[in-house]
Amino acid sequence: MSRYWSSIVDELTPYVPGEQPKVRNLIKLNTNENPYGPSPEVLEAIRAETTDSLRLYPDPASERLREAVAARHRLAPEQVFPGNGSDEVLAHTFLALLKHSAPLLFPDVSYSFYPVYAQLYGIEYRRVPLDEELRIRVDDYLEFGPNGGIIFPNPNAPTGRLLPLQDVERLLAGNSDSVVVIDEAYIDFGGDSAAALINDFPNLLVVQTLSKSRALAGLRVGFAMGNTVLVEALDRVKNSFNSYPLDRLAIAGAVAALQEQVHFQRSRRAIMDSREWLTAQLAALGFDVLPSGANFLFARHPERDAFALAARLREKNILVRHFKQRRIEQFLRITVGTDAQCRALVEALRETLQQ
Amino acid sequence: MSRYWSSIVDELTPYVPGEQPKVRNLIKLNTNENPYGPSPEVLEAIRAETTDSLRLYPDPASERLREAVAARHRLAPEQVFPGNGSDEVLAHTFLALLKHSAPLLFPDVSYSFYPVYAQLYGIEYRRVPLDEELRIRVDDYLEFGPNGGIIFPNPNAPTGRLLPLQDVERLLAGNSDSVVVIDEAYIDFGGDSAAALINDFPNLLVVQTLSKSRALAGLRVGFAMGNTVLVEALDRVKNSFNSYPLDRLAIAGAVAALQEQVHFQRSRRAIMDSREWLTAQLAALGFDVLPSGANFLFARHPERDAFALAARLREKNILVRHFKQRRIEQFLRITVGTDAQCRALVEALRETLQQ
Repeated sequence: MSRYWSSIVDELTPYVPGEQPKVRNLIKLNTNENPYGPSPEVLEAIRAETTDSLRLYPDPASERLREAVAARHRLAPEQVFPGNGSDEVLAHTFLALLKHSAPLLFPDVSYSFYPVYAQLYGIEYRRVPLDEELRIRVDDYLEFGPNGGIIFPNPNAPTGRLLPLQDVERLLAGNSDSVVVIDEAYIDFGGDSAAALINDFPNLLVVQTLSKSRALAGLRVGFAMGNTVLVEALDRVKNSFNSYPLDRLAIAGAVAALQEQVHFQRSRRAIMDSREWLTAQLAALGFDVLPSGANFLFARHPERDAFALAARLREKNILVRHFKQRRIEQFLRITVGTDAQCRALVEALRETLQQ
Repeated sequence: MSRYWSSIVDELTPYVPGEQPKVRNLIKLNTNENPYGPSPEVLEAIRAETTDSLRLYPDPASERLREAVAARHRLAPEQVFPGNGSDEVLAHTFLALLKHSAPLLFPDVSYSFYPVYAQLYGIEYRRVPLDEELRIRVDDYLEFGPNGGIIFPNPNAPTGRLLPLQDVERLLAGNSDSVVVIDEAYIDFGGDSAAALINDFPNLLVVQTLSKSRALAGLRVGFAMGNTVLVEALDRVKNSFNSYPLDRLAIAGAVAALQEQVHFQRSRRAIMDSREWLTAQLAALGFDVLPSGANFLFARHPERDAFALAARLREKNILVRHFKQRRIEQFLRITVGTDAQCRALVEALRETLQQ
């Protein structure tokens, strides 16, 4: 605390991202990165933009990127809001669309950045408990009464559980007075995007990222899709915060990523195949594994402490993520890596469990 | 307005950046971009980073960049806060350090984003008039009484006028109860940075950018330098907003830019030389030209309307910036371009003035 700090600063409990170790030769299954890398077209597009033109400001609206997202999702460019990673898009969403007199609702087990954004902007919220199987129950939200908005990841993180699109639609149909944000960071690993519902529901905002299925966590590009009125609110906040959130290289790389399909389809298919294999292997080792629609598994062992397991894996140079949080403190979140990484993980767990 | 908008959205008057035209073959002297482009080492560093490693998140703290800034300015890395352009750094600064019960002070003629940030975060402010020669008078700030912070660009924008470092020091010595932010976007074009005063004044925050003197407007990198206590506040807000504001390519390019000096010195020297030439030429055409410490000139013609002049230049494919704002509506802000661009501007103005 300092007399120079604004009073809000002392109240903040910042988000803690997964570890980004500087040591090499680790098997890094802790931050849900894509093991296969971006498509060659993306790297080529970035190289082509790496010229003297970097002296010029980027397009403040990133129009080319809005058009590329719109083309991919059969929307108009005016229905797209791009940002510096989906985290920035979510931050602007909290301030622009989720700050109301009634409380914001999100699951008790969910992306742990949500309460941080709420604290940053002074937004009241309620955590709605997942059911006993760690599933989102739409009726719990519909029965809550007046709310200032609803947000959850689908598939949920860190559970990996997918809410079927018909349940998302039922939620939207029954909650027309506030914005519903579906945070689809992991949707490309087997789910159906709610983007298809945007023209039916003016209160639907769908957020996606290029960090996971497009393997561009290092480029920082995310976007929201929704009614033009919602996009206008986001643009007003963005233009009161930073005119140019996306640099020229990020725009070029993101456009190329969205226009490419072969590499995208192949790598997401490979990850889904590995996920099935890894699920079976973990089950064979005695783990309870939640069904996953994401590029990670959420699993617990009935007889072994999760924190201790993560520590043993760390000794074997394998990073997985453990959350010290009520209801899930006995789970590990394990990113689906390459086949070799998945095999190494299974082997390390087998050794550990035999001791 | 929409019932889905948070109430703040309707109150915002977003910042309007200078035009980024999609037409080519324009002489673009309207957004203070550097005509010479970044150093070859920067492009090389970005190309070297354009690999499969983009699948991995960047370092959330951008430690390498903090170290490069610290080395350049003889500070510790803990005294450096990097961000996605100095606009993002300024936004976080407003929320973290300038929101207090007493009003924030800044010049009546200054960077027009300041009142936008203040509005976004609900910060009360007072505009302190520049003197009749459009200079900042330190005594006006010292005599104001209790304030919640002071911020101005040095050199000021859009006037280009430089406040000597001893005046900055006098302001700091006389205003120890609130944070003083010196926004040095243009300092490398002839001024002395207040970064040299950081270890003497715990309430000093200096903000710089790579957009101007390092010719990297398209890469979006800025940073603040100050006491570790101030940097901690900025990090707390940043980590409650976006864990990863800088992508891997921006970090790599920015580090290379800060470690390079030959191209940097040559291009800033060339711009300062062109500025002197252009000042003399405009004076010969009858313009009043303010003394500039920046890479732009602020000039008015006693007999010609500035808005009309800008429109005539636009017809000749030359963009300059005009502000519809009290006290400066008869000025043009003209970026110092290459020698050829400066000559073309002078020729176009000569033709226009003869008509």
